This record gives sequence, C-alpha cells and structure tokens, in this order.
Amino acid sequence: MAGYAYYDGEFGKRESIKIPLSDRAIFFGDGVYDAAVGVGDKIFLLKEHIDRFFDNLKRLSIAPPFTKDRFAELLFETVNKSGIDEYFLYFQLSRGSSKRIHSYVDANEAHILITVDGFSVPEPKKNLKLITAEDLRYYYCDVKTVNLLPAVLASGAAQKNGCDEAVFHRGPVVTECAHSNISILKNRVLYTHPKNRLILSGISRARLIFHAKRLGIECIERPFTLSELFSADEVIVTSTSRLCAAAESVNGISVGGDDSETIDVLFSEIYREFSDFCMPKK
Amino acid sequence: MAGYAYYDGEFGKRESIKIPLSDRAIFFGDGVYDAAVGVGDKIFLLKEHIDRFFDNLKRLSIAPPFTKDRFAELLFETVNKSGIDEYFLYFQLSRGSSKRIHSYVDANEAHILITVDGFSVPEPKKNLKLITAEDLRYYYCDVKTVNLLPAVLASGAAQKNGCDEAVFHRGPVVTECAHSNISILKNRVLYTHPKNRLILSGISRARLIFHAKRLGIECIERPFTLSELFSADEVIVTSTSRLCAAAESVNGISVGGDDSETIDVLFSEIYREFSDFCMPKK
Repeated sequence: MAGYAYYDGEFGKRESIKIPLSDRAIFFGDGVYDAAVGVGDKIFLLKEHIDRFFDNLKRLSIAPPFTKDRFAELLFETVNKSGIDEYFLYFQLSRGSSKRIHSYVDANEAHILITVDGFSVPEPKKNLKLITAEDLRYYYCDVKTVNLLPAVLASGAAQKNGCDEAVFHRGPVVTECAHSNISILKNRVLYTHPKNRLILSGISRARLIFHAKRLGIECIERPFTLSELFSADEVIVTSTSRLCAAAESVNGISVGGDDSETIDVLFSEIYREFSDFCMPKK
Repeated sequence: MAGYAYYDGEFGKRESIKIPLSDRAIFFGDGVYDAAVGVGDKIFLLKEHIDRFFDNLKRLSIAPPFTKDRFAELLFETVNKSGIDEYFLYFQLSRGSSKRIHSYVDANEAHILITVDGFSVPEPKKNLKLITAEDLRYYYCDVKTVNLLPAVLASGAAQKNGCDEAVFHRGPVVTECAHSNISILKNRVLYTHPKNRLILSGISRARLIFHAKRLGIECIERPFTLSELFSADEVIVTSTSRLCAAAESVNGISVGGDDSETIDVLFSEIYREFSDFCMPKK
C-alpha cells in the first residue's frame, strides 16, 4: 500500500507531497525525528516517543510549534486519514526555513513532516546476521537527528554482505547498531551500553531492561567489548521496528544461541506487551 | 535579488522549486555538496570544486549521472538563466530516492540540486571574531556532506556571541572552523592542520599554502594547539565565500595582529588571483 504523508498543513499520498528548498533539513540535516509502530488507533509507546522527540528538539534549540497533546492529535489525524491499518509512523521537525547559512539564529518556524507507511507487525526472530563497523559517528548519538550518513554507509555495507544490521564499536567497545541498540546476555546477566552521548536511549532497549528486571534477570548498564560480544550466551538487538531479536552471527561467525530459554521467556513478555496493547483480544 | 535554482531538470526561482519526500537528503542527509563563487561567466576555481565534488561522491558510493564536463555545462547554464551577475553557486547531489530505509543499496538515480544566490565579492578582512567549541563531529570531516548539524550548532553559538566563526578543537588540538579552515602564522612560518579525516581539504586553504610558498613563507602542515592559536602572530581563516581573513579575537581575547606585514602581502596575492580571474581589467 502506498504511503501517506503530512507536511506543514498539507495531507496527501506520500508521492504527492513536496517540500520547499528552504527547509533546513535539505542543506544541513538540521532536524530531529522519531518513529513508532501502530495498529489502527493504537500507537505503541507513543508517549515515550513523543517525550523523547520533545527532549531532542530542546537539545538542538528547535522550538516545537505545538504542545505534546496537540502533536499527538496531529499524528492520530494523519494515521486516520492514511487509511493504513498496520503502520510505521515517522515524524520529523526541521528548524524551519532560512537562507543557506549555517547559523540557525534567523530560521523561522519549524517544518513538520509526518509519514505513514504500511508495516508488518514484527515477530520474534532469533537469526539476525550482523557485521561490525568502526563507529565513526559524532558525539550527538543520543539525539535522534537526520545526520545519519555513517549509519547509512554501515547499513549499506551490512546489506551488501547479506546481513541485517551493523554493530558499531569505538575501538574495542561496542556502542550500538546502525539503527538499533545491542545488548548481550552472559550467565543470565544482561549487559548493555550505558545511556550517554555515544548511544540513542532506545525505547525498546528500555522495555528490554524493564521486562528483564521483572523476570529477575540482573541488568548492568556498562560498555561491553567486541570480545564479550563474540563470547556472549545471547546477542539481543532492539529497535522500534523490530522490537527485539537475537543474532545468530557476527561477521559470519556464530554467536549466541546458548541461553535460548531466557531469550524465549524474555521475548515472549516483550511481544505480549505489544500485542496486548495494539491487538487486544476481543 | 531573489535566488535561482535547479532540481532534476527543472529551472526556476528558488522559492518555486520543490523537492519530493523520497529524496534521501531529507531523511538521512545522504548527499554531498560543494560551492563556488563567481562573477558573470567566470566561476572561481571551478575545476578544483568539481574535482573535490566527484571525489566526495566516490567516497560515499554515490554515482554521478553525468561527466565532470557535462556537469560544468549544467552549472554554467543555471548561472546564465539566473541572470545574477555576482553569485554564490551551490550544488548538491543526494543518493536518489528510496523508501525510508537506512541501507542505500536500492536507491535509484541521484537527485541534482543547484542554487545561485546574489553575493558580494569578498574583501580582505582583518577583524574576524571567533569563539571556540569542542569538535563533536564525526570522522568524515574530509567529505563535504550535508550532515552539518554540529557546524550549525557551533555557528549559532558564534552568532549569539557576536562572533563570525567557531573554531573546533578536539581536546587541545585545533582542527578547523565550523565552515572554514584555520591556520596560524608564527615567526613567519604558516602552520595548518594536515589533510586527514578531521578536516575538509579546503580549496582556499590550498591557495593560501600555494601563495605563501611562492612568497617564501615556510608552510608546515601539522596540528597546532589552542595555546598556539592564542599566541600566534596571526590567525588566518580561509573559505570559499570569504577567501581569507585574519582574526582579531578568540573568545573575546585579542589574537594576532603581530605580523600584519606578511598578512597584507599574502592576502593581496590571494585577492589578486581572484580579481584577475573573475574581474579582469578591460
């Protein structure tokens, strides 16, 4: 099904919406985005996504032209108009229009972009293939901006190698993936990189930690190394579009698969939360 | 005078040109740009700018849909149609259109964007005000991409502080400015950061080195520190739009001004090259 979009007051099919050259996203990537998945009028973890979106706007001194409540209404309105039942909802605010000068001081009101695309509800997977890539990104990885080129290059390299995701590392330390967070299980302890400017504070990552703790699994937020990744009992990748999945290989070398019992229980809790919210049994 | 633009075959006034949502520049900053200044049918150092542009495209595996010669013709055609006599010419190629997925493997033909804006021919200045900012950028600074957010934030901070540019440093080491290169003169030796992935290989920086050598000034391409910046005889900022200028302060503290004789000779050579090319005496 063709996608649907909204831009600065105009609704329409994705391919009919066009944006002006003055939008600072085009010349500078001067914008923030977030995304969520939903079914019908249920958008999963919407409050968390909107809260993060507004935090990120503040980090970049981009003034949102609406309240959180009004913005949520606009998201629901766009979803409803789209007529798409199972969807990936993407929203982006750029720092308005200006001449093409770096300084943003004279930019006017932010531009709002929303897209809704058909999406298959994710299923627990245990066979992700990963590759590694040196993390050459900037130190704003905790802000969800559209300056995504290093993630684009690493994702392209993953696909060319028949893999699903690229694992970034700064020297020996694993940070996150190109568009996911990554955690490991070892001796029934969950390790994941702490929240700082080197990783995005993933909302699915937070659900993973929440459910792990509820199941009595110890969670330690500390950096882990490539060598710990390769010797982990399980390697877990989390993201909005995939919720959570386990990896079976990194650079073609088998990883994980040594604690499928814990993985099964954990993933079933995480997917149940999603189903109960988005697809409640009648 | 209002700007003029070209996008994928369409010419028109800047504000009339719109771009499709599928352009990967909007969601990922997945594009490369370059810029030059010109007068009439003379575009200063155009070959150097086009060579760098094509090198950068290759670095990101973006396939240009034209040869260098055909692209130069398109630039001249756009300039001519604009009717603007003294201009800043900007050109950008993004990695075509695709669904909003990070991997670029399925993207189709590159999108071409060109803008022409009225511009005053630069004059040698010796009173730039600078501020410093920790260099939080990625390790692709040698590629002229539109992932420019850290430069945007630093430039905004500079403007808010009444300054002209922000000087990036990684710890004690000065790299470059938010949209310029930076060099220092000390005891009639020119020091400037070596070309590597921490700085853009500036075309005006290359002219500065060329003219300095011709004048018998020793040039050493090695990193210099903030403390060397503050104790330099002169601080020189180079860029396409400004050619070269000297700074009078950094963070409100006076710098340079101790070798205006060398600066005067050097700048006069650099500006003469520009005038002789763009505005030859009849």
